[in-house]
Amino acid sequence: MDRKIVFYHAPNSRSGGTFALLEELGADYELHLLNLKAGELRRPDYRAINPMGKVPAIRHGDALITEQPAIFMYLADLYAEAGLAPAIDDPLRGPYLRWLVFYGSCFEPALVDRSLNRDPAPPSTSPYGTWDDVMQALQLQLTNGPYMLGERFSAADVLWGGALHWTTLFKLVPETPQIRAYIDRVITRPAMQRVAARDAEFVALQVA
Amino acid sequence: MDRKIVFYHAPNSRSGGTFALLEELGADYELHLLNLKAGELRRPDYRAINPMGKVPAIRHGDALITEQPAIFMYLADLYAEAGLAPAIDDPLRGPYLRWLVFYGSCFEPALVDRSLNRDPAPPSTSPYGTWDDVMQALQLQLTNGPYMLGERFSAADVLWGGALHWTTLFKLVPETPQIRAYIDRVITRPAMQRVAARDAEFVALQVA
Repeated sequence: MDRKIVFYHAPNSRSGGTFALLEELGADYELHLLNLKAGELRRPDYRAINPMGKVPAIRHGDALITEQPAIFMYLADLYAEAGLAPAIDDPLRGPYLRWLVFYGSCFEPALVDRSLNRDPAPPSTSPYGTWDDVMQALQLQLTNGPYMLGERFSAADVLWGGALHWTTLFKLVPETPQIRAYIDRVITRPAMQRVAARDAEFVALQVA
Repeated sequence: MDRKIVFYHAPNSRSGGTFALLEELGADYELHLLNLKAGELRRPDYRAINPMGKVPAIRHGDALITEQPAIFMYLADLYAEAGLAPAIDDPLRGPYLRWLVFYGSCFEPALVDRSLNRDPAPPSTSPYGTWDDVMQALQLQLTNGPYMLGERFSAADVLWGGALHWTTLFKLVPETPQIRAYIDRVITRPAMQRVAARDAEFVALQVA
C-alpha cells in the first residue's frame, strides 16, 4: 500500500500538531501550505477539499481525513512501526483513544468558553462539565507517569504536549510544575523542535 | 482475551448510543444503571470511576474508556467480527474515524451553542465554524449513499442515526427528507428498537 499522505497545513495554527506527528512517525508526506491570515482556509478551492474550511486535513489516496484526533489515530496506525499507537489488542488502546477524543470533545470546548469568558453550558448539556473537571481529569491522568499513558510515549503526547505548550503560553491553562515538566518532556524532542523551526520560517515567508 | 465489558449507562441520556452499539455488536456486557435525575452521575462513587461524572463510560479489564466516539472505536474494533468498523487497512477507515470524531468535536459543540441560542465563537476559535458549516458537511456526506460511509453500514451510523433522531425530535436539527430517511433506516434496525424499548422500561422504574 502506498502510504504517502497529502497534508494541508497553516503555519501557527492547530495543524502544527499533525505536522509534529508526521515528523515523529517518519511519514512520507507532501506539504500543502495555506495562509490563514490571508483567508485561504475559507476560500472555495480549499472548501472543496475540507468543507469545514479548517486545518489540519490529510488526504490518503481518495480518502479525506479531518479532525485532529481522527488524523492522529489514522496516521499512528498507518505508520504502526513507529510505535506511537498501542495496537488494538493492547490494554492501553482504550485509554489512548479516550485521551485523543477527550482533546476535541472536552478540552477544546472548555478552552473556547474560557477564552471567551463564557460560562459552560448547564451540567446536563455541557460536554465537559466545568473547567475544573477538565483540569482535574487531565492532572489525574498525568500522575500515571512521565507520559499520558504512563511510561509509554504515544501520539497522544504529541497532541497534548503541543496543545498544553500553546495554551499555557496564552495563559489559558495554568502552568503547574507537573504540566510544565510534561510540556518540556514533549517539546524538547528532536521532531518537535524541527517542526517548530520550520513553522517559524514559513510564518516569516507568509504575508497576510 | 476476555471481551466482557462493564457499561455505565443512564437511561434517556447520550449513553443510549453505546447501549445500541453493544446490542448491534452482540457484545458480552454487564449493565450498570445510573439515575441521572437523582444526581448519581455527580456523586463521588461514580466520579471515582469517571472523574468527568458523565456517561457513557465502559470498563474492559483494568482500562476505563470514556467519550462516546472513543468508546465506539474501541468496541467496534474489539468485536471486529460484527463488521461495524472498517479495518485499519480499509480505505473507509479514515472517513470512519473522521465522522466519529466530528460528532464530538464539531456537532456536539454546535448543538450546545444552538440549544443555548449562543453565537459560535469567532472563526479563528470555533471548532465547527458555523451551524451551517456543520449541517452542510453532514448533508454532503449523506449524499454518498444510504449510510455515512456510502453502501456500508458501520458503527458511525449507530451514533449518527441515534443522535439525529433525538436532535430532530428536539427541533435542533431540521428534519429534511434526506435526514428523515437516514434516521428511519437506522432506528428501525432490531437492535435499535430493542434498546429503545428497554430504555423506556428503565426510565419508568427510576425515581428522581
